[in-house]
Amino acid sequence: MDLAQLGVADLRRRLQSRAITSAELADILIARTEAQADLNGYVAFDAEALRAQALAADARIAAGEELPLLGVPVALKDNIDSIGLPSGAGTGALHGLCPARDAEVVRRLRAAGALVAGKTNMHELAFGVTTNNRITGAARNPWDPSRIPGGSSGGSGVVVAAGLVPAAIGTDTGGSVRVPAALCGVTGLRPTTGRVPGRGIAPISLTRDTAGSIARSVEDCALLDGVLAGGARPLAPVSLQDVRLGIPGPGFWEGVDSGVRAVAQGAVDRLCAAGAQLVEVPLPTLAGFNEAAGFPIALYEFVRDMEDYLHYAQRGVDLRQLVEAIGSPDVAAIVQPLLGEGAVPEAAYQQALQARRALQAVYAEAFAAHGVRALLFPTTPLTAAPIGRDLTVLLDGQEHPTFAAFIRNTDPGSNAGIPGVTLPAGLADGLPVGLALDGPAGSDRGLLALAVAIEAVLPALPSAPWRR
Amino acid sequence: MDLAQLGVADLRRRLQSRAITSAELADILIARTEAQADLNGYVAFDAEALRAQALAADARIAAGEELPLLGVPVALKDNIDSIGLPSGAGTGALHGLCPARDAEVVRRLRAAGALVAGKTNMHELAFGVTTNNRITGAARNPWDPSRIPGGSSGGSGVVVAAGLVPAAIGTDTGGSVRVPAALCGVTGLRPTTGRVPGRGIAPISLTRDTAGSIARSVEDCALLDGVLAGGARPLAPVSLQDVRLGIPGPGFWEGVDSGVRAVAQGAVDRLCAAGAQLVEVPLPTLAGFNEAAGFPIALYEFVRDMEDYLHYAQRGVDLRQLVEAIGSPDVAAIVQPLLGEGAVPEAAYQQALQARRALQAVYAEAFAAHGVRALLFPTTPLTAAPIGRDLTVLLDGQEHPTFAAFIRNTDPGSNAGIPGVTLPAGLADGLPVGLALDGPAGSDRGLLALAVAIEAVLPALPSAPWRR
Repeated sequence: MDLAQLGVADLRRRLQSRAITSAELADILIARTEAQADLNGYVAFDAEALRAQALAADARIAAGEELPLLGVPVALKDNIDSIGLPSGAGTGALHGLCPARDAEVVRRLRAAGALVAGKTNMHELAFGVTTNNRITGAARNPWDPSRIPGGSSGGSGVVVAAGLVPAAIGTDTGGSVRVPAALCGVTGLRPTTGRVPGRGIAPISLTRDTAGSIARSVEDCALLDGVLAGGARPLAPVSLQDVRLGIPGPGFWEGVDSGVRAVAQGAVDRLCAAGAQLVEVPLPTLAGFNEAAGFPIALYEFVRDMEDYLHYAQRGVDLRQLVEAIGSPDVAAIVQPLLGEGAVPEAAYQQALQARRALQAVYAEAFAAHGVRALLFPTTPLTAAPIGRDLTVLLDGQEHPTFAAFIRNTDPGSNAGIPGVTLPAGLADGLPVGLALDGPAGSDRGLLALAVAIEAVLPALPSAPWRR
Repeated sequence: MDLAQLGVADLRRRLQSRAITSAELADILIARTEAQADLNGYVAFDAEALRAQALAADARIAAGEELPLLGVPVALKDNIDSIGLPSGAGTGALHGLCPARDAEVVRRLRAAGALVAGKTNMHELAFGVTTNNRITGAARNPWDPSRIPGGSSGGSGVVVAAGLVPAAIGTDTGGSVRVPAALCGVTGLRPTTGRVPGRGIAPISLTRDTAGSIARSVEDCALLDGVLAGGARPLAPVSLQDVRLGIPGPGFWEGVDSGVRAVAQGAVDRLCAAGAQLVEVPLPTLAGFNEAAGFPIALYEFVRDMEDYLHYAQRGVDLRQLVEAIGSPDVAAIVQPLLGEGAVPEAAYQQALQARRALQAVYAEAFAAHGVRALLFPTTPLTAAPIGRDLTVLLDGQEHPTFAAFIRNTDPGSNAGIPGVTLPAGLADGLPVGLALDGPAGSDRGLLALAVAIEAVLPALPSAPWRR
């Protein structure tokens, strides 16, 4: 048995029964992390601190304590404040700086007994999907180290997929948890906006951001969700024969790489064979609403919310210093204009909020009118691109803007604030393909319960080559 | 037409059509506030600053700007940070101190064009329901100034009911928005937990607290909800003939003052006459779960979350200084033990979170199994008590603990985090009685739409004597 291949729930059972110790687990993960340093999944990792946390957890288990994550290491994206490790948000001005307080999600993880394994690489300031970060270096996909792991929570995808840690926490504004989970062949949850507190996390946008989990099974994502959300109900079993699922259109299944589409369609066929009822759900006005709402909100709120974060978290850096020290040209191109003439006007922001409300109404009505529990689509229209294609990627031979292409399918639901799960659906040309499920606002536990049933009929992926 | 009697939506229409100006409105409200100073609804009020905000709003309206609250004054509970006015949370250590940042809800109100009218009196640290505050003085009920307005957002109830401002923001942990709204004869909304951000609000408990609105109609509460929640859908009209409503039991309708019960029953009879279908919804295990979950969570988290607030908001006071400067004996009795041997142990807190999960499941199953959109009950088991009965109140001739008696009906739903509305249902012995509606988690807009339909069939209350 290779402890590095096990999930959170399984490890917890073995730790509680004393079949293994947290210190043994930590030693194995430390050795693997050192061996796989070239993947650049972690940007901060303190082996001694992890060992010390593991020994303390073992003492608590020996004393009879039972907590949902006691003794289990969890990695944190670099924009999540955690005492004892730097919290750099992948950016030059914050790189190496240690925060004075734990983010609320970290406090909840620690209260549940989790160990903080380390901080994971990310797209600079979370403004992108490649994790080709010029400050911390490019993160590399465990399925092919010449390719991106996705982003912005790219390192969180890497460390879970490479077997360096059983689970990691990321953040998601338009797909930043689900894109790397999909491209790395693991499982990710973006919760309903507002479900998980954002305090102590370097933001893009208060309206759009949420922390979420990356793990190796839906069960593990659900376990982490319960901790991050401050308590949640157990999942009620779902039978696929009782559910209606929606295929959204137009757009989600079109303009998709043909290999990706075939894998995702194969997953849907399995769901039909298992008795699920699939119906088409037209969302005709989605693209226009999302375009009007998405970027104006994120860009307006970044200026406001990052300034707040720097102030409240007492980072000793102001917004102008932060922006001037951005190292990744693609991120500088987005962020630097915001402090000058490229600032989003208040009126445009208010209009964008109106468009967002309309988008939310489109989703709510679509779920209700068609009686579907989730909308299904390929998480990304393409698999992991080669490192270095920061601005454009090739999709079925044509050039598309990198950022927009990868978040195309996950961004509308993110913008509406609804929950989304990605599951590994198979491989296309040896690279993972994700199947995404978007559910109604607030249906997180129901969506996870549905995802458990779907996961059970999908083929198991082999381990990533760089995980073995 | 008396502008001081109009609601938010009505004022907005008149401001936008230039039938009135914000400066005229401000002058009328300033004059009323000075005339009604004995009610002690405000603890900080700056007439000059309000006039200046109103003039600026008039200039924006004249320039063609349209925002949902442009030119409308809104009052804020004293625990909500607002630049330019002290933010004392009704407590000695913070009294008179001005914060450096606006709370997120205040920023949203200002972005929507609202004017900050002043800070309202509250029960010290929000730990109680009388607003008989020893630091700021007792707030007085506009229906009978010898009686309490309820609490903890007592001043917010007073200023709305007395016609000093069209709407006010409060906070609610176990009933602190709905109790004063009910006892003052106005309308209150407690949103689903997590719907409205808490940053910049002195907390009791991150898990349980939420900001909410007090106004003179459901329409106005819905308008404020859209702003506080950062956008919301318009309310879809509801016909009472199409809805099932639940009468929860046991407990909610028993042990209630006979006059209160008669008024609330009369309101339910009107709903039946209007075609609504009423069904009994037994919640047998509720009381036990709520007792196990409620206070341990609030008391454990107060220590953690107040310490955080003092740190992040840079108030220059530590938790021990805060606790030592508490002026109200009933609050000191609750809070002071928490820093010593009365601290809630971690294990008890974890158990309480489990109990809360179970409580949430009871509610979710009850709504689903009985197909009801809301549970109806008297908001409080008794009307406004005389000022001074801090520890016990008389209820049908028997003594009951004051705090527990007033929040008895609103606390279980609060603890589960579900949304609740209170509507004025009538008068018992000349004092207002509230009808409460609790809805499923996340159903805020649906619950407000239902409340609009219910409000339409309830009798209109006369104005409070001290409002005229």
